[in-house]
Amino acid sequence: MSEFSIIKDFFQRVSDDPNVIVGNGDDCAVVSIPAGYELALSIDTMVAGVHFPENTQPFDIGYKAVMSTISDLAAMGAEPKWLTGSLTLPEADNVWLQAFSDGLFTALKKYNMTLIGGDLTRGPLTITMQAHGLLPKGQAVKRKGAQVSDLIYVTNTLGDAALGLQLALGHKQLADAEAALTSFNRPEAQIAAGLVMRNFATSAIDISDGLLQDLQHILTASNIGAELIVDNIPLSPVLKQLNKTEALQYALAGGEDYQLLLTVPAKQQVEFEQQMLVMVTCIGKIINTKELVLLDANEENYLFDCKGYQHF
Amino acid sequence: MSEFSIIKDFFQRVSDDPNVIVGNGDDCAVVSIPAGYELALSIDTMVAGVHFPENTQPFDIGYKAVMSTISDLAAMGAEPKWLTGSLTLPEADNVWLQAFSDGLFTALKKYNMTLIGGDLTRGPLTITMQAHGLLPKGQAVKRKGAQVSDLIYVTNTLGDAALGLQLALGHKQLADAEAALTSFNRPEAQIAAGLVMRNFATSAIDISDGLLQDLQHILTASNIGAELIVDNIPLSPVLKQLNKTEALQYALAGGEDYQLLLTVPAKQQVEFEQQMLVMVTCIGKIINTKELVLLDANEENYLFDCKGYQHF
Repeated sequence: MSEFSIIKDFFQRVSDDPNVIVGNGDDCAVVSIPAGYELALSIDTMVAGVHFPENTQPFDIGYKAVMSTISDLAAMGAEPKWLTGSLTLPEADNVWLQAFSDGLFTALKKYNMTLIGGDLTRGPLTITMQAHGLLPKGQAVKRKGAQVSDLIYVTNTLGDAALGLQLALGHKQLADAEAALTSFNRPEAQIAAGLVMRNFATSAIDISDGLLQDLQHILTASNIGAELIVDNIPLSPVLKQLNKTEALQYALAGGEDYQLLLTVPAKQQVEFEQQMLVMVTCIGKIINTKELVLLDANEENYLFDCKGYQHF
Repeated sequence: MSEFSIIKDFFQRVSDDPNVIVGNGDDCAVVSIPAGYELALSIDTMVAGVHFPENTQPFDIGYKAVMSTISDLAAMGAEPKWLTGSLTLPEADNVWLQAFSDGLFTALKKYNMTLIGGDLTRGPLTITMQAHGLLPKGQAVKRKGAQVSDLIYVTNTLGDAALGLQLALGHKQLADAEAALTSFNRPEAQIAAGLVMRNFATSAIDISDGLLQDLQHILTASNIGAELIVDNIPLSPVLKQLNKTEALQYALAGGEDYQLLLTVPAKQQVEFEQQMLVMVTCIGKIINTKELVLLDANEENYLFDCKGYQHF
């Protein structure tokens, strides 16, 4: 099976997007950006055995690769449109390819996205995807921009994916753990939330490396600090089965939640909470000193060491 | 060394491009496309031990990764502007990273390009880059479009890189071979040629998988055939040292030349040849029957088997 027949058999599907001028299958893809919009783009790589266990289902690998990549668009407030992908495979296996491409296209279909280009090479299993989205001119929500006394919000619940990873690796057993496994294997990018939050947020990031590490990126970029109330961090029912220390370990330092972390001016609190389409929880506020303070519900310091996932 | 300090130390350089709204270091890059232009983009992956020998100099890896990726822009007639890159590394090695990023930025500087985003992960050495360029609206030169009796042209000379690979692997020894090694390790994308050729070409592709295989892509997309005169294929002085059979093996089936292969209406021949800024050679013509015919200078059939590089 040649590179070209694999692309034709598994990765070429018809698109009706009028802004795709040249699609998958030429030297380049060519797209047209509508007037009044800017292009947001983000590239992400997943390596087998590093970003997902070797035995992960190929459907999930394809699905998650798309979702984790477009999650960066959500964090900028952009609307996802087009995907390019590069797949490095040790061997061409039709069953694997069919399931992987089904996962990929299932995720794309949720947002009416089009696969516009790619590359296919032989080597250790590695998936790189780049997502492209549209932003009304000047509306990008950056990491920089958080202001003193802004409220800090997160979407949905945190820590589920990190617990799911431990379950997937067999490092932990737990009853009723299906939801955590699904959070890890099939995360959902917070696209709809991103489109609403861009009208309110002074800064935003998606939580891929853990709440504390990703919050620190906002604090560094914005040159300020934060006070977090750890007891306010939203936990799912499965996390609540664990003792507080373990649950907060996952929620504070666990990666791959792909929830949004954002800052909102206090005076917009009511309108923001009303308009968001998903659960949002205020977990703290921006402070004047350049530190990240963790407090419990009694305003006592909460001691916590780990700072999130380090690649090197 | 963290992922973030590596990016800061080796991959963040200031850009003065006013169309880069958000550069390297946020969740997404954001770019603005000038009115009247479309965006061309192409993604490419290089795997150590597959696309380049393990002992390749890191400067060359960075340089070649950029050039091979923007070569696809040249083939569409686009002007390169922005690069994203994903680097998967077995370990963080400062000396390697410095040389790799020097090679990368040296290539970018030739075209005043900006690195606008990337990802850094741990794993087997793999480099994925996506190049983004501008095309005046409707001016993309596709693979589809070659017409019967169009002339077939290539830029510069062919086969040097394939010979260079054999030299680099130690499979061959040859005097005065430096030029072939350079062709393999530091190819030059034919950007300037692409910008001129788009005013003439009915179809184009860059030669990355070998002349015959890449020409076949044009023929399939355009639904026609071709007649090549193998004795007209331009060979460099180092290729001319070899016997004809071996030289043509490299020139017809050897990959990674990154020269342009294009078709031009016969009536535009003179103006096309005058305006091109690099050497161009007519090596054949488009024919009505759906076959690829190889002839020698005496119009006898030239027998040749190999169809170019196959990944799987």
